[in-house]
Amino acid sequence: MIRIAVAGATGYTGIELVRLLMGHPQVELTCVTSQQYSGQLLADVFPQVGQRVDLVCDPLDVDVIARKADFVFTALPHQAAMDIVADLVGAGKRVVDLSADFRLRDADLYAQWYQAHSQKDLLPKAVYGLPEIYREKIVPAMLVANPGCYPTSAILALSPLLSHPAVALDSIVVDSKSGTSGAGRGAKTGSLFCEVNEGFKAYSVASHRHTPEIEQSLAAMAGQTVKITFTPHLLPISRGILSTCYATLTSEWTAAELVALFREYYRGEPFVRVYDAGSLPNVGYVRGSNFCDIGVAVDQRTGRVIVVSAIDNLVKGAAGQAVQNMNLMLGFPEEAALTALPLFP
Amino acid sequence: MIRIAVAGATGYTGIELVRLLMGHPQVELTCVTSQQYSGQLLADVFPQVGQRVDLVCDPLDVDVIARKADFVFTALPHQAAMDIVADLVGAGKRVVDLSADFRLRDADLYAQWYQAHSQKDLLPKAVYGLPEIYREKIVPAMLVANPGCYPTSAILALSPLLSHPAVALDSIVVDSKSGTSGAGRGAKTGSLFCEVNEGFKAYSVASHRHTPEIEQSLAAMAGQTVKITFTPHLLPISRGILSTCYATLTSEWTAAELVALFREYYRGEPFVRVYDAGSLPNVGYVRGSNFCDIGVAVDQRTGRVIVVSAIDNLVKGAAGQAVQNMNLMLGFPEEAALTALPLFP
Amino acid sequence: MIRIAVAGATGYTGIELVRLLMGHPQVELTCVTSQQYSGQLLADVFPQVGQRVDLVCDPLDVDVIARKADFVFTALPHQAAMDIVADLVGAGKRVVDLSADFRLRDADLYAQWYQAHSQKDLLPKAVYGLPEIYREKIVPAMLVANPGCYPTSAILALSPLLSHPAVALDSIVVDSKSGTSGAGRGAKTGSLFCEVNEGFKAYSVASHRHTPEIEQSLAAMAGQTVKITFTPHLLPISRGILSTCYATLTSEWTAAELVALFREYYRGEPFVRVYDAGSLPNVGYVRGSNFCDIGVAVDQRTGRVIVVSAIDNLVKGAAGQAVQNMNLMLGFPEEAALTALPLFP
Amino acid sequence: MIRIAVAGATGYTGIELVRLLMGHPQVELTCVTSQQYSGQLLADVFPQVGQRVDLVCDPLDVDVIARKADFVFTALPHQAAMDIVADLVGAGKRVVDLSADFRLRDADLYAQWYQAHSQKDLLPKAVYGLPEIYREKIVPAMLVANPGCYPTSAILALSPLLSHPAVALDSIVVDSKSGTSGAGRGAKTGSLFCEVNEGFKAYSVASHRHTPEIEQSLAAMAGQTVKITFTPHLLPISRGILSTCYATLTSEWTAAELVALFREYYRGEPFVRVYDAGSLPNVGYVRGSNFCDIGVAVDQRTGRVIVVSAIDNLVKGAAGQAVQNMNLMLGFPEEAALTALPLFP
Repeated sequence: MIRIAVAGATGYTGIELVRLLMGHPQVELTCVTSQQYSGQLLADVFPQVGQRVDLVCDPLDVDVIARKADFVFTALPHQAAMDIVADLVGAGKRVVDLSADFRLRDADLYAQWYQAHSQKDLLPKAVYGLPEIYREKIVPAMLVANPGCYPTSAILALSPLLSHPAVALDSIVVDSKSGTSGAGRGAKTGSLFCEVNEGFKAYSVASHRHTPEIEQSLAAMAGQTVKITFTPHLLPISRGILSTCYATLTSEWTAAELVALFREYYRGEPFVRVYDAGSLPNVGYVRGSNFCDIGVAVDQRTGRVIVVSAIDNLVKGAAGQAVQNMNLMLGFPEEAALTALPLFP
Repeated sequence: MIRIAVAGATGYTGIELVRLLMGHPQVELTCVTSQQYSGQLLADVFPQVGQRVDLVCDPLDVDVIARKADFVFTALPHQAAMDIVADLVGAGKRVVDLSADFRLRDADLYAQWYQAHSQKDLLPKAVYGLPEIYREKIVPAMLVANPGCYPTSAILALSPLLSHPAVALDSIVVDSKSGTSGAGRGAKTGSLFCEVNEGFKAYSVASHRHTPEIEQSLAAMAGQTVKITFTPHLLPISRGILSTCYATLTSEWTAAELVALFREYYRGEPFVRVYDAGSLPNVGYVRGSNFCDIGVAVDQRTGRVIVVSAIDNLVKGAAGQAVQNMNLMLGFPEEAALTALPLFP
Repeated sequence: MIRIAVAGATGYTGIELVRLLMGHPQVELTCVTSQQYSGQLLADVFPQVGQRVDLVCDPLDVDVIARKADFVFTALPHQAAMDIVADLVGAGKRVVDLSADFRLRDADLYAQWYQAHSQKDLLPKAVYGLPEIYREKIVPAMLVANPGCYPTSAILALSPLLSHPAVALDSIVVDSKSGTSGAGRGAKTGSLFCEVNEGFKAYSVASHRHTPEIEQSLAAMAGQTVKITFTPHLLPISRGILSTCYATLTSEWTAAELVALFREYYRGEPFVRVYDAGSLPNVGYVRGSNFCDIGVAVDQRTGRVIVVSAIDNLVKGAAGQAVQNMNLMLGFPEEAALTALPLFP
Repeated sequence: MIRIAVAGATGYTGIELVRLLMGHPQVELTCVTSQQYSGQLLADVFPQVGQRVDLVCDPLDVDVIARKADFVFTALPHQAAMDIVADLVGAGKRVVDLSADFRLRDADLYAQWYQAHSQKDLLPKAVYGLPEIYREKIVPAMLVANPGCYPTSAILALSPLLSHPAVALDSIVVDSKSGTSGAGRGAKTGSLFCEVNEGFKAYSVASHRHTPEIEQSLAAMAGQTVKITFTPHLLPISRGILSTCYATLTSEWTAAELVALFREYYRGEPFVRVYDAGSLPNVGYVRGSNFCDIGVAVDQRTGRVIVVSAIDNLVKGAAGQAVQNMNLMLGFPEEAALTALPLFP
């Protein structure tokens, strides 16, 4: 049994890692950290794990983590993760980092959208952990930068089109909608039930930090710079991201032809389901699972393709993908701990 | 007191008309019809109107309506409305029709998206009831075609840009999200609580019937044909439409300049609120009201403008706009019965 | 026009007072206070009032309030309200206080459930503002203690039974369920969307502070001490309280006979709707309105009566009842500003 | 591998059985039936099982089921299940029946609350499938009547008190609140999203069919007839039942003493979690799991105990308990396929 630590276990992503890892036959969760709840039983903070998890939250201390665990997930805020990750890697631990700190390969680009990067030397060693695209690089990686939730949904939706390529690179619009768990567990007025419930809004329009992360992967596929317009919205649901992606086709395609293109591209992938032409995904159909469901439509009147992708932001958009990366890194079956069917209704 | 009939009072739009009309100081609701609940007390079908409305549902009979009322709202399914409306107009009644039957001026276009039109002669006499654009024509109209919910949100969001004009006509994408009351009160599996709750999906992609209705108004402003890509989505909320509209700017604009353009365009409008640059609307802030809230942002990196509009689909998107039209037609203050502030939370 | 102040306007109860008062033909809202948002435009904090309310939030200063307004609503936390209310009354203002501070007539009882009372002298002058029971005393009152949300729902459900009397006094159980706006607008983890959504729980079992408030009114009716078991629960909705009240009948009654008893008791009341036997209320049917809907059933097998009452906790449970009290105090029609039908769906 | 059939797989309970059984290492799902979707791929009806389940829905035919499967779950409406179950048992199949048809041992009682029973001979052979109470009888049973959702929550909450006994038998009130999946997947107006969302109501007060089922088990424990008052309510959530149970204590107990009593009673149970005194369950903490969480409080002022239990109505209240019963019947580990932690948020 590999001993696992989750640093930052009392956020929504952290506790989702706990949920998934407890169902993994080849690992043992031996350490959870939490600044806010240090010293408390994890089951007292999250009664849902009662009778199954009897760990006490440790403070965020690299020595403690390194002693207690062989492999580490860091589910910390960006900037806070940076140095901790470096220390863990320095201590010889393999790490899947769920923050944004090691996702952008260009430290200047990172500085432009976030703040200065204190661990630039580590950036070239980090592998972007989207298994459907970068599987081979993930397997031997010491440090995997787990993709953002929006980027996962957008990159999986657009990659087959850009790889072909089938669309005009300056025509891409990504209109995404995320459940509220994406905003984290911090006690902010804007995340209160009464503020979110029965509401819907766009936010961070033309300025969201996931924009360069999406563009980085699309550019890698296109072999040139890609600029997109990205608009996130807040859904009054707990889990799920649906991204509706628009691009102008450079030649004529039917929806069925594009579905065939997507299915060829994702052939054999355990977690990508491409729908038949005419059918479209729903975040409700992936809830609690690591699936990314994709539907493709063509607007013949305007020459645009519309790709709709759905993921659970806490699973394929965070903790599930992180476990998928761990499985690849440790030589486990890629689907281990990730086979449960979605919870519907 | 003008005597008012609501034909089709037991759908969500119909009962919303009842709610609003009961608060109108210059009209009296004297007739409500319902095929399904004919003969029943309206308050037995909708307990929320108990102790305030004591009308019994009449069957859908033009003679009855014509005898009991001076002015008629028809809140019937498309195709079903067509002949009834013609009969009511023939009987000398002024009508606001909330179906799609008289919204498209071109009977062939209507036939292409719906089915054959049986009242083509009446089409030229119908006025498209979007007061912010067509106020003068509405005032004297005998028949007003009340706009669709999605078109209201999209046309109000895009009109200032097309009138100027400030955007490339072939670049427009409208990504709309609607609350579930837009699907009506029919007992369909897809509208069940457990199917909609905690879910989110796109539907009728590149094929929704509101597309030509939006294009008709945009073309009128642009002075030439306009083709858009329109994608509706289903939100797990009861009320509200948020439309996120994208277009490529033909010259450089800041968000503040566009806000000024929008404010000039909607100067004096009682129901359009243009937000300061940097602020964006939320469907929660218009719930139960006739407001259309609009926010404008610019993506300098890609040269696109993003306009976000929010309405209550049952009010500004249906019953409230219908009452606004009636107010114009009957010479009442335009805001009569529509002054209540939104219900939040 | 009477000039009105709302002290504490940026909580959910405060902003609901603003919503209702803006629709009142005989008053003018001239002052809103907020500690947190002092100096900001109210419409910047709550965009829903934009274009209709242009007040800037004042700090909580009795002199300012007294200068700007003739009549004051205090929507402040308990304990904070106490001295402010006393100062306002001292300055000659009539006050409706929405806190708990002047609801209990017995300062010792207050001290036992809350903390020491600093304005005991004022207690005897305060009138409990439940108009259906205490209308005559409210009319001339200088200070009205607006009832709690749970007590309003429970007392209106049980009063006819206790006044008759028809039930055993030691048999009463009140099982109440409240929407989340009842928890206020404070940024607490427990009120986050993801914590509340798709959840349901009991809280403060056998220890909620509204218990003595309910008992005080029931005892007044029964002419002797009454002890009840009261259990509040948290509903994943924004607005609404439903109370299911149980008591053992002291003689045989049918549901129809009890309905008749309730209708006689509430005869002429504008805001109480007693349902036919066999029908039961739903919080959705009172949303946004000042109604209290009541349904009565009898369990013949066990000899118990079950009374179910539904209110909107922010309206009849707070701001609406406060306006109703103001209407009585100022000689306005009791329904002024409270005639809007519930918002459904 | 034991071959399993689910008769009635396209209701919410049926598809939940599919979800759970697909994760069971010792069984293979070989047959699903559906009257409505016969001949269709199950994954076309429920896209969430796509790429994992490739079964086509069979019509409801006992011969087909008997040929394809060794063990059968019947998730059919009451009355419809009766004869099918008898035929399956006659064909030598062991059956877990999730309908109400074999839960009441007394055919006259069944007839009084449902309709005449056509398989009275089979009633004595059916075992009531609540493993925490009847584990030994379930192991060898040919036919297990899987308990109702409300009864599961109420009986587990009350059994320790009645077995002791600690409460007055005529004092019991069960106030239950269920998520909407309990109403099934039928397309009824009352189950529409807009009718349920933001609403809450009681229904079937003093007349719900689960009443005698609860009483039957309580009477078995008490050794005498027990009559309770039972009130179900409809929660605007998809999954979950919370039952708040009231009874008068016959002697003085502290909450801590009662917690100890409950923990002793449920010692070693894998799916019952008794909370510390002062803590209370939330349906959100058991979502998707087979747990029954129980909290106990005492109202010293009135001498009542309040027990709050939470289950997922589709899991411990239906499909999960059915799988638990199958595990017992087939000699599998009782927790097989039921170890996943709850999905929160």
